[in-house]
Amino acid sequence: MYLRSNIIRLLQYRSCLTKFQELGFNTIYSYNLGKRVGVSAEQIRKDFSKFNIRGNKKAGYNIEELITTINEIFKKSSPQNVLLVGYGNIGQSLIKYKGFSRSMFYIKAAIDIDPSKHKRKAIVPVLPPEKAKEIIKKNGIKIGIIAVPDTGAQEMCDLLVKAGIKGILNFSSLVLKVPENVIINNINLGNELEALFYHIHSKQRSS
Amino acid sequence: MYLRSNIIRLLQYRSCLTKFQELGFNTIYSYNLGKRVGVSAEQIRKDFSKFNIRGNKKAGYNIEELITTINEIFKKSSPQNVLLVGYGNIGQSLIKYKGFSRSMFYIKAAIDIDPSKHKRKAIVPVLPPEKAKEIIKKNGIKIGIIAVPDTGAQEMCDLLVKAGIKGILNFSSLVLKVPENVIINNINLGNELEALFYHIHSKQRSS
Repeated sequence: MYLRSNIIRLLQYRSCLTKFQELGFNTIYSYNLGKRVGVSAEQIRKDFSKFNIRGNKKAGYNIEELITTINEIFKKSSPQNVLLVGYGNIGQSLIKYKGFSRSMFYIKAAIDIDPSKHKRKAIVPVLPPEKAKEIIKKNGIKIGIIAVPDTGAQEMCDLLVKAGIKGILNFSSLVLKVPENVIINNINLGNELEALFYHIHSKQRSS
Repeated sequence: MYLRSNIIRLLQYRSCLTKFQELGFNTIYSYNLGKRVGVSAEQIRKDFSKFNIRGNKKAGYNIEELITTINEIFKKSSPQNVLLVGYGNIGQSLIKYKGFSRSMFYIKAAIDIDPSKHKRKAIVPVLPPEKAKEIIKKNGIKIGIIAVPDTGAQEMCDLLVKAGIKGILNFSSLVLKVPENVIINNINLGNELEALFYHIHSKQRSS
């Protein structure tokens, strides 16, 4: 199964709502929220209704209540450990990325096929692939991050799946093959730039 | 304006179609494509019809034609230069990221407020913020990438907008304020993990 975007939108709504709250607003209309996130008011109402979030069409939504409700939807009972696969450029910058710990995700260890990168005693140890299963079991890890070149991505993915991983954040440009019960979230930054460029161009054509 | 997701989906479809083609398939049904990307067949037909892509419901879509059509939608007349803001961990790994050049995007220069990071003669020079406008004008740059800590993100965003940037790929977790004619695409990797985790949990609850 691959990840759909309504969940990501809900998290974007939360970011915007927090911003509006900081600016001193108490209520918000779906139109204004939509304008900020780049979706229609209708889409917002659809997404909210899907998660049983109710508002008052005339008075708008109470921002604090909205944030609380969204937080409850995403509530984790505890911080989550994550296994990183690939200690290259992307992998190393992900270890330093502050946005993960802000959401209570922690990279517990990294695995890499290159023995010269292995270091056992580091805060985030870098270990050989054979160690993956042991780390996953011992730390109850459910999520893996794949940050290896395309050529090795499927092999590493198979390794994670065999070891019991349930979700993968995939930075390779490969479309990974996984069993039905494993979820993939693809991060393709080239696609993100391409989408941005497409929008700029269509805006210029239409103005 | 913020970026919507139908364009990203179209690019995901292309990745999957290429994969199916490599595996020897000639035609595909919206149901099978949807299953792979994680959207409904209905969503795919909706997206395709939006971009005037037509198929035969009974015989399916011709994969090669589909890829050609999507490529035409995203056709850039020339490679595009991009300006990177922030030569930290993320910035440095983006410079080495191969997925950009695969989509014909090239980071022409980076700017950073830290003088100790500046280097003029590098393949990707690192320059002070005052140089941003000159680089943007000289190279016809339309897209900026913001990879600085949240505290500096809005200031750098304003600088880019003033210098004529039309689209921003934003790696900070800040919701940036931009004029109506500038497009933002937010990349929040913490949100991506959170969405993945949410899906794993709802799958476990429902099974």
